[in-house]
Amino acid sequence: MNVGIAYYPEHCEPRRWAVDYRLLADAGITMIRIAEFAWSAMEPSEGQYDWKWLDDSIALAAEYGIGVVLCTPTACPPIWLTEQYPEVLPVHKNGQAVTFGARQHRSYHSPKYLEHSCRIVEKMAERYGAHPNVLAWQLDNEYGGEVKYDFGPCAKQAFHRYLEDRHGTIEALNASWGTIFWSQRYDRFDQIPLPAPIQSDLMMWHHPSLELEFARFSSNGIVEFARAQTRILRKYTGDRPITTNAFMFSWGDNVNWAELFAELDVAGVDIYSGDEYEIAFYCDAARGALARPFWIMEFGASSPELDRKLELVSQRGCSQFFLFKMKPFPWGQEQAQGRGELLTITGEPARNYGVVQQYTRQLDTKKQEAKYQDPQPTGAPGSADPGRSAAKLALYYHFDSSWCYQLSVGDRLHYPDYVVKTVYRSMYEAHDGLIDVLYSADQLGEHEVVVIPLHTIYDAALEERLIAYVHAGGKLVVTADLFRKNQHNVYLAEVPRLFRELLAWQPNNFILDAIDTRQSILIAHEYGAGGTWVVPRDASNEEWLETMAVVLKA
Amino acid sequence: MNVGIAYYPEHCEPRRWAVDYRLLADAGITMIRIAEFAWSAMEPSEGQYDWKWLDDSIALAAEYGIGVVLCTPTACPPIWLTEQYPEVLPVHKNGQAVTFGARQHRSYHSPKYLEHSCRIVEKMAERYGAHPNVLAWQLDNEYGGEVKYDFGPCAKQAFHRYLEDRHGTIEALNASWGTIFWSQRYDRFDQIPLPAPIQSDLMMWHHPSLELEFARFSSNGIVEFARAQTRILRKYTGDRPITTNAFMFSWGDNVNWAELFAELDVAGVDIYSGDEYEIAFYCDAARGALARPFWIMEFGASSPELDRKLELVSQRGCSQFFLFKMKPFPWGQEQAQGRGELLTITGEPARNYGVVQQYTRQLDTKKQEAKYQDPQPTGAPGSADPGRSAAKLALYYHFDSSWCYQLSVGDRLHYPDYVVKTVYRSMYEAHDGLIDVLYSADQLGEHEVVVIPLHTIYDAALEERLIAYVHAGGKLVVTADLFRKNQHNVYLAEVPRLFRELLAWQPNNFILDAIDTRQSILIAHEYGAGGTWVVPRDASNEEWLETMAVVLKA
Amino acid sequence: MNVGIAYYPEHCEPRRWAVDYRLLADAGITMIRIAEFAWSAMEPSEGQYDWKWLDDSIALAAEYGIGVVLCTPTACPPIWLTEQYPEVLPVHKNGQAVTFGARQHRSYHSPKYLEHSCRIVEKMAERYGAHPNVLAWQLDNEYGGEVKYDFGPCAKQAFHRYLEDRHGTIEALNASWGTIFWSQRYDRFDQIPLPAPIQSDLMMWHHPSLELEFARFSSNGIVEFARAQTRILRKYTGDRPITTNAFMFSWGDNVNWAELFAELDVAGVDIYSGDEYEIAFYCDAARGALARPFWIMEFGASSPELDRKLELVSQRGCSQFFLFKMKPFPWGQEQAQGRGELLTITGEPARNYGVVQQYTRQLDTKKQEAKYQDPQPTGAPGSADPGRSAAKLALYYHFDSSWCYQLSVGDRLHYPDYVVKTVYRSMYEAHDGLIDVLYSADQLGEHEVVVIPLHTIYDAALEERLIAYVHAGGKLVVTADLFRKNQHNVYLAEVPRLFRELLAWQPNNFILDAIDTRQSILIAHEYGAGGTWVVPRDASNEEWLETMAVVLKA
Repeated sequence: MNVGIAYYPEHCEPRRWAVDYRLLADAGITMIRIAEFAWSAMEPSEGQYDWKWLDDSIALAAEYGIGVVLCTPTACPPIWLTEQYPEVLPVHKNGQAVTFGARQHRSYHSPKYLEHSCRIVEKMAERYGAHPNVLAWQLDNEYGGEVKYDFGPCAKQAFHRYLEDRHGTIEALNASWGTIFWSQRYDRFDQIPLPAPIQSDLMMWHHPSLELEFARFSSNGIVEFARAQTRILRKYTGDRPITTNAFMFSWGDNVNWAELFAELDVAGVDIYSGDEYEIAFYCDAARGALARPFWIMEFGASSPELDRKLELVSQRGCSQFFLFKMKPFPWGQEQAQGRGELLTITGEPARNYGVVQQYTRQLDTKKQEAKYQDPQPTGAPGSADPGRSAAKLALYYHFDSSWCYQLSVGDRLHYPDYVVKTVYRSMYEAHDGLIDVLYSADQLGEHEVVVIPLHTIYDAALEERLIAYVHAGGKLVVTADLFRKNQHNVYLAEVPRLFRELLAWQPNNFILDAIDTRQSILIAHEYGAGGTWVVPRDASNEEWLETMAVVLKA
Repeated sequence: MNVGIAYYPEHCEPRRWAVDYRLLADAGITMIRIAEFAWSAMEPSEGQYDWKWLDDSIALAAEYGIGVVLCTPTACPPIWLTEQYPEVLPVHKNGQAVTFGARQHRSYHSPKYLEHSCRIVEKMAERYGAHPNVLAWQLDNEYGGEVKYDFGPCAKQAFHRYLEDRHGTIEALNASWGTIFWSQRYDRFDQIPLPAPIQSDLMMWHHPSLELEFARFSSNGIVEFARAQTRILRKYTGDRPITTNAFMFSWGDNVNWAELFAELDVAGVDIYSGDEYEIAFYCDAARGALARPFWIMEFGASSPELDRKLELVSQRGCSQFFLFKMKPFPWGQEQAQGRGELLTITGEPARNYGVVQQYTRQLDTKKQEAKYQDPQPTGAPGSADPGRSAAKLALYYHFDSSWCYQLSVGDRLHYPDYVVKTVYRSMYEAHDGLIDVLYSADQLGEHEVVVIPLHTIYDAALEERLIAYVHAGGKLVVTADLFRKNQHNVYLAEVPRLFRELLAWQPNNFILDAIDTRQSILIAHEYGAGGTWVVPRDASNEEWLETMAVVLKA
Repeated sequence: MNVGIAYYPEHCEPRRWAVDYRLLADAGITMIRIAEFAWSAMEPSEGQYDWKWLDDSIALAAEYGIGVVLCTPTACPPIWLTEQYPEVLPVHKNGQAVTFGARQHRSYHSPKYLEHSCRIVEKMAERYGAHPNVLAWQLDNEYGGEVKYDFGPCAKQAFHRYLEDRHGTIEALNASWGTIFWSQRYDRFDQIPLPAPIQSDLMMWHHPSLELEFARFSSNGIVEFARAQTRILRKYTGDRPITTNAFMFSWGDNVNWAELFAELDVAGVDIYSGDEYEIAFYCDAARGALARPFWIMEFGASSPELDRKLELVSQRGCSQFFLFKMKPFPWGQEQAQGRGELLTITGEPARNYGVVQQYTRQLDTKKQEAKYQDPQPTGAPGSADPGRSAAKLALYYHFDSSWCYQLSVGDRLHYPDYVVKTVYRSMYEAHDGLIDVLYSADQLGEHEVVVIPLHTIYDAALEERLIAYVHAGGKLVVTADLFRKNQHNVYLAEVPRLFRELLAWQPNNFILDAIDTRQSILIAHEYGAGGTWVVPRDASNEEWLETMAVVLKA
C-alpha cells in the first residue's frame, strides 16, 4: 500500500514547495493529491487561466519522485461564477439560496454550473491529461457532502423530467404513489412540489413516494455530474485511473455508491473515525463498490495509533492511502484547531511523521519495483482466485431502503447507524476476516453467510437470487421487515414468494406484524442445503452477536 | 353505543366494496364515515364533478345495512385550486406559504378558499342532503390540526377587521393593551402586525394582548368557517345531525370547543390515547360541549384492550363510536407502519376484528330496534332527570386562560397538559363516576364540587355565579392565580370581589403574590352553605389527590 | 451609594405621580431614571412633539427632592418611523426583517434611523440639557441586546466600507484572510457576504476571518451610534454625566465595553443575578471600564437578600444604584408575572420597600451633604492613592478573543461563561477583595497577580507590557492557548517572543499542541522578580482554585 498525502501548492509561496517535497520524500510519501478547491487559482476570472503554479508544482514534485493525483476543483465555484450566474447556487430546503463563502455552493442541476464545470475540467484535462507525472484523477470533493439536495428552480425542472422519464404519464404516477390519499392527485408533472418543509404547526411531511423519488433523483444528479466529468477526462487521460472521494455514511449516505463508482476505475473513500470496526466497514464498503482494491483518499494525519490503522486498511484491500493533510491550515473554515498534522503549524514534524516514515521503509522492496500500483481488477485481497472474494461473510447495503427509512413519516429509522454500528460491528466482532459489502443481487457469491438487514424495499431479482443462494447451501440472515414495500415506497398487499420458499411461511401476513414475541431469532428454517434466520429489525448488538454465533456454528 | 368505522371507497376498486361491506356487516358495524379528504375524487378539475363512485358506494352500503356519515372534504383542497388561487394557502409564522402536498393547506380567511369550499359543500348537500342512507354529516377534518394559524395577507386583513369590531377605535385598543409600553402605540388598525416571530437575537415576543387576540381570532376563524358549512347543509339535510371531529388538546387546544359545537347537533371527538384517564377526559369534555351524548369520530382500530375501552366510553356518554380505520393505508403520509387495523394490510381480520364482533353482538336487542340513535338532547347518561347531569364533580376548562398561559412571555405554562394530566387525572382517580367538563358560567349546576384550575382571566359572570354556587352549598376548588388578568391579558390592579366574599380575603394583594408558604391547600374557607379551597397553581398530582380527598369529605 | 429607581411617568395618569414620588421619597430614593422607550410619547407622529408630560413629571419630581436621569428613547422607534422608512428595521440572520412590536427594532447602520434618532436626541437635549433637575443622561437601553447584528442592505454597505477602511485593498484582505482556501478569493469589497447562515445540509460556517470582522464591525456600529448621541448631548448638557446601561455577558458580550464607555463619563451596567460572584464580576467589570466608580442602572427590585447585595455592590465601587423598577407592568412583554417590585401590582409596598428604606436611612449623613455624587475620576474605592487601584488581583477580559472563540468553526468555546463562571469565580473564592477587570495593556498596574484566560488573539503591546510586568515582580497566569492567532483570526506560524522570555520555552511549537499531559499547572516559570503560570485552557473551577492558591502563596 503506497502512502500519499493531500497537498495544496497554491497555499504557500513556490519557494516553500521544495522544502515540503523534501520532507514528504523523506517520509516515504510518493504521491500528492492536489488542486481540489483551487478553481479560483486556476481561473481567477472567467476564461482567464493561470496554470503556472500548477505546472511548476507538478514538475517539481516529479524531481522528488512524487507523483500527482489531480483533482477537479468543481466543489468550489469562484465568486465571479456565482455573481454572474446566481442560478448555480442551490436552494436550501428552507427556501434560501446557499451562500457563497464556504464550499459545495453549486447545484448539480444548474445548466450554467454544468457548463462551467465541464469547461474547467476540459481545460485541465487538455493540459495535464497526458502529463507523465499526473498519475490519476480525483473528481470534485465529497459529492453531496455539505449540500446534498437542491430545492431551487433548476432542480425542480430536472426532477419533473426525471419523474416523467420514470413514470411515463401522470396517471401512472398517481396510481403508483396512491395520490388518491388526501386528494394529492396531480394533473401534470410540473405541479409536483419538491419535498421542502410543509410549514405546518404540527409535524407534517410530504408524501413518502415523493420523498423517496427525490432522494433517488438527488443521488442520480450527483452520479450524472460525476459521469459528465469522467467522459471529458477519458478523452485525454488514457488509462490513468479516475476516482472520487466518497465520505462516511455518518455524514449522509445520500449518494448511491454502486452507481457513483460504476463508471470509475477505483473506489475512493474518506475515513475519519477512531473506531476500528468503523474503519473496517468503510474499507469493506469501498472494496465492495467495484469488488477490487480501493483507495483511501483522506485519513486523518494526526490519528492516534496510525501504525495499527495502516495495517488494518491495507489488509482490507486499500492499495493507495492518502493522509489528510501535510500541515494545518492557518485560516479558513478548517483552520488548525490547535492540532498538528504530518507537520505542526510551525512546520516541525509532528508525532505521526515518524510513524509514516517507519511504515514506508518497511514497504521498501515493493516500492522499488513500482512507483504506482495499478488499480485494475485483481479480485479481493487474500483470494487465491483473482476473480473470487475470500470473504466468508457478506453484508448487503441497500441505499433505497436506507432512504426509505430515513424519510419515513411514521416509522423513521436511521439505517446507516444501525447497519454500521450494530449489524456490521457484530459481524466484525464475531468473525476474524474480511466481510464483503454487497450492493446488488449479482454480487452474491460463495459467501458462507449473507446478512441483509432492513431491506424493506422489494427486489425481485434479489429474491430470486436469495432462493437460489440458500438452496445451494448459503446461510441467509434477514430482519423481519424484509420486502415490505415496493419500489414506490408503497406497502405490499401480498407476502412475496421468498417467505413461502425459504421460511415455509404460511400466514397471509408479514412477519413483522404477525410475530409478537421477542426473541433474538424469530424464525430459523432450513431450505435445500442452506438455511434462513429472521431476526427482529431492532435487534441489539448483543442479539446480533448471539445470532452470528448460532449461524456460524450451524 | 353503535359502532362505525372510517372507510375510503375512493381508495380501492369498486369491486372490493362488497367484500369490505360484508366484512364490516359481519363485525356488526352499522355505519361508515366516508369522503373526508376526497375533494379531488369528487371534483377532479374546477367545476367538473364525479359523483358516481360516491353514489354507488353509498347505495351499496345500504344493501349491507350500513349507514353513512358523509364528510365535507374541505381539509384537502385539490392541486387545481391551490395552483389557480395561491391565496388559499395559509402562510406559516416563518413567512413561507404552507405547501401543497399534505393536508390542511388552506387559509380559513381566504375568500377564494371559502367560496370554493362552500361550493363543494353545497354540491354535496344538494345531491346527498336528503339521501335515505346518508344519516349524518361531518364537517371537514380536525379543524386547526396541522395548520392552526395563518400569517398571510388574508388573515392580516381579517384580523384588522376583527380588532376594529372588538375595540372600535385605535385609541381604545391602545388604552386597553397598554401600548404605551415600549412605544408600541398604533395610529391605525392596519398597522398592527400578526404575531409572527420578531426575529431577534435573544428571545423576544409580541405584546401579550396582541398574542391573545390573535389566538381568539384564529379560533374564531375556524368557528365561522364551520358555521358557513353548517348553514349550507341545513338547507338540504333536514334533521340529520351535523358534527365535526375535534382532536385532543395534546395536539393543541386552539379551537374553542364551546363555540365550535354551539351550532352543531352533536359533539364529535377523535381520541388516540392509551391512558384511561385521558380517554375519560375527552369523553367528559365532548359530553360537556353540548351537555348531551357525544360521538367519538376516530378511535384507533388497533388499540389494545379495545373491549374495556368500548365500555369506558359508552359509560361516559358516547352514543356513536367510529373506529379509525378499516385497513392500513399502503401509501401516503399515514401509511401502514407495519401495524394492522380492523384488517391487516394483506386483508385478513386483525386481532380487534373479533373484539368488535363480540361487542356488537352484545348490543343486539337494541340494535334491532333502531339503526340510528338520534343524538337529540337527552341529558347526560345515568341521569334520572334527562335535563340534569348525574356528575358530582365538575372541571372548568377555559380556553382564553389556556391561550394566555401558553403564550405568556414570562410566565409560560402548558395549561392543557396540567389540566388534563394533573388536575383531571387526580379527580378521576379520587372519584368513581362522571366528571362534567364546563366551558361557561351557565353550565354550573348541581355539582357537589367544581374545580377551576388556572383560570387567570377574569370573568364577571362566572364570579357572580361562583359566589351564588358556594353560597348555596357548593364546594369550589381554585388555584391561587384565579382572576389575575382582564380580558385584554392585562393584570388587574385590584383584587376582585370574589376574594372578599368567598375567602374573606382582606389584603390588597393577590393570593399568588401574598402567600409564600407552600402547602397543598393554601386557603380553605366556608361561606354560606359551601366552601372554597385555594391550591397552588402548580400543585402536583399527589397534592391534588390530597385536596380532592379533603374536599370530598368536607 | 445613592439609590434611584426606574420610573415611567408616561405609564400612568399625571395625578398618580405625586403619590408615587411621595412613596419614593419616603423610601429615601433620590433619583429616577425616566423616558427610556418613550419615543412615541414624546413624538406621537413625525415632527410633532408632546413634552408636557415630561416637563411636568420632571418638575414635580424636584418638589419631592428627586433628581432625574433622562434616557434617550432610541431603542423603540415608533410605528410611524418604521412604516415610513422600512430600512430602519434590521434584518435577522435568517433573512427576515425584525418586526415592529417589541423593542430594538432598529439598524445601527440605517442612515434614516440615525437621522431620526439624532433628531429626537437633539430635541430632548435642547429642552432638558440645562434643566436643573435633569442630573444625568442615559443613552438608549441595553445596546445590542435583543438585536445584536443586522444582516440587511444598510449593514452590508457599511460593512464593505468598514472592511475597505481596515484592509485598504481587496488583495490585502485576500492575503490576510487566506481566501485562497476553498477558492474564496474576492475581486471587490462589495462581493463579500455577511455571515448569515450558509444554508447547508451539514454544519457549515463562514470564513472565520469574515466572522470575526463582522463581530468587530457590529460592536463598532453600536459604539459609533452611542458616540453620535453623546456628541449631540455634550452641546447642551454641560458637565452632567452621560452613561448607558450595558448588560451581562450571559446575554451576549457583543459590544466592546472599553470602546463603548471610552467617551462616556461613567460606566453603567444592568445586573440580574442571584449569584454573589456574578454580581461581583459585573461590578468589577464596570469599574474596570473607566477605572473609576460606576453606576448600576438596573438591579431587580424584588431580589432576595437585597440588603446584602446593596453592601456588596457599594463595596465594589458602585456610586449610584438604580432599582428596576417601582411597580410591576400590568401589560406588555415584561408584564408582572405575579411578582411585586418595590410596590405590588395593587400599589402596596412590597417586601423590599422596607429594605430600601432602612438602607437609605443609614446613609443619612452623607445624603444630606450632596444629593448627587459626581462620578469624576476618583480612583477605585478603598485606594489610598486616588489614581491607583487597591485591587491585588486582576483579570483580563478580551472581547476579540471572546468573539473568536464563540464564532470558531472547529474549536468553539463559550468565553464569557468560562471566564465569569470558572475563572473569575475561582479568583473571587480564593481571594477576599476587589479584582480589577482589565481591557487593555495600559491598564496593567501594581497588581500582584494578573490572570489572562483564553487570550488567543496576539497583541504585541500586551506582550511587551506583560514581559515588563513579570520582570518587575508581577505574577502572570495564562491559559495554554495564549497568542495563537493574529488579529485576522489566523493561526500564527511562529511562537511569539513572550514564550521564550517568560517561560524559557524552546520548542518551535505552541504549548497547547506540545504538552499532552494533564495537570492543573502545565508550566510554572520564574523570570526577573516575578513568574508565570500556564494552565490548561479548560481548567475546572477546582483546578483554578488550586492554581490561585499556589500563585498567591508564591
